[in-house]
Amino acid sequence: EIVDAIAARLADGPLKGRRIVVTSGPTHEPIDPVRYIANRSSGAQGTAIARALAALGAEVVFVTGPAQVAPPEGVTVHKVETARQMRDAALAALPADVVICAAAVADWRMAEEAASKIKKTRDGLPTLSFAENPDILAEISQMETGRPALVVGFAAETDDVEANATAKRARKGCDWIVANDVSPGTGIMGGAENAVTLISEEGAEAWPRMTKDRVARRIAEKIADALRAG
Amino acid sequence: EIVDAIAARLADGPLKGRRIVVTSGPTHEPIDPVRYIANRSSGAQGTAIARALAALGAEVVFVTGPAQVAPPEGVTVHKVETARQMRDAALAALPADVVICAAAVADWRMAEEAASKIKKTRDGLPTLSFAENPDILAEISQMETGRPALVVGFAAETDDVEANATAKRARKGCDWIVANDVSPGTGIMGGAENAVTLISEEGAEAWPRMTKDRVARRIAEKIADALRAG
Repeated sequence: EIVDAIAARLADGPLKGRRIVVTSGPTHEPIDPVRYIANRSSGAQGTAIARALAALGAEVVFVTGPAQVAPPEGVTVHKVETARQMRDAALAALPADVVICAAAVADWRMAEEAASKIKKTRDGLPTLSFAENPDILAEISQMETGRPALVVGFAAETDDVEANATAKRARKGCDWIVANDVSPGTGIMGGAENAVTLISEEGAEAWPRMTKDRVARRIAEKIADALRAG
Repeated sequence: EIVDAIAARLADGPLKGRRIVVTSGPTHEPIDPVRYIANRSSGAQGTAIARALAALGAEVVFVTGPAQVAPPEGVTVHKVETARQMRDAALAALPADVVICAAAVADWRMAEEAASKIKKTRDGLPTLSFAENPDILAEISQMETGRPALVVGFAAETDDVEANATAKRARKGCDWIVANDVSPGTGIMGGAENAVTLISEEGAEAWPRMTKDRVARRIAEKIADALRAG
């Protein structure tokens, strides 16, 4: 990592002078002072992407939820916990040439976080009501002024990966979707490897299963190519 | 730790020949293949207790949820994720002289875990319905045959610590409750220190704030005294 960071600073990498915001990791949504809703994202893929972008010379702002893996060297790190904090930190990092929303953001939070620990009651089970979290990918994709040249989303699917991800790209208005199959049998969520399908205007491109580091380098190179072409 | 473990095996510690089951850490309750409900227990206090008991010569079975801290050396470790798995592992470890339920077990789980990732819908927010988890402390405390001589529960409270913990001791039927105040301001949940109140037949005993390691040693010594007296 240190070698990458030094290499980036010394070399005129293809992303030199480009500012890229990467969101990564899970978010945690508090239920009460001791409980929260989490998800199984380890932050490994987002971290690898941030590292690969920095290695190609980009100035990277890395907005991360409570991930299992440490953030990369050579990037500006903002640590957040909830989806709302992640949105605020990502928007505050704009303008940027590229935004990559790799975080597994919770779709919903508690409508009201309890100030005290919710107790077992004789009467029965608690009722939790939910509110929708901000949709960071859609919000940035649909910016009317100052929209980044390239907005990349992720889709963690368990069924019909390509169809769901293609629909998600259209719905959000982002440029690319990096889709992966997180069914428990795949070992991808929390594992070292990933098998992604890249959805763009040109259609779906299924990449072979490879390490998350290799996926990251390939995405970083594709971004460099796209910015050069644009 | 290694020194402790060796010391335990060489020395005739006061808990030599005693079998003690310790549950520790949080439990995770799956919502769907990617989301789960968690709690902020780090497992630090339960781990310190298991280590302190082993250092006094006890044979320790350590049943742990997905904790942030590594299990101690010199104990038999069973890793679990959900409350139901924790219950099964704890009961399977009986008979024992002492059971210490230090885990922050989720009170409820999803009534039905979704087999596929729950999607955002245009229609609105998901409705999650809950089912009550097994109450491991009550179940072991109220065993009609083979009940351990000493059953110790924990109470993580945010309000009226002593009153809530005293009521909990009576309700569960355990011998001691180690109560602590996990209000966010205290820094106890996830921190290095603890301020506990020990609730027993003799009433409430408030201990000064000290490291979790010191709390653990004091609990271990008190257990050794109680077994000697009994």
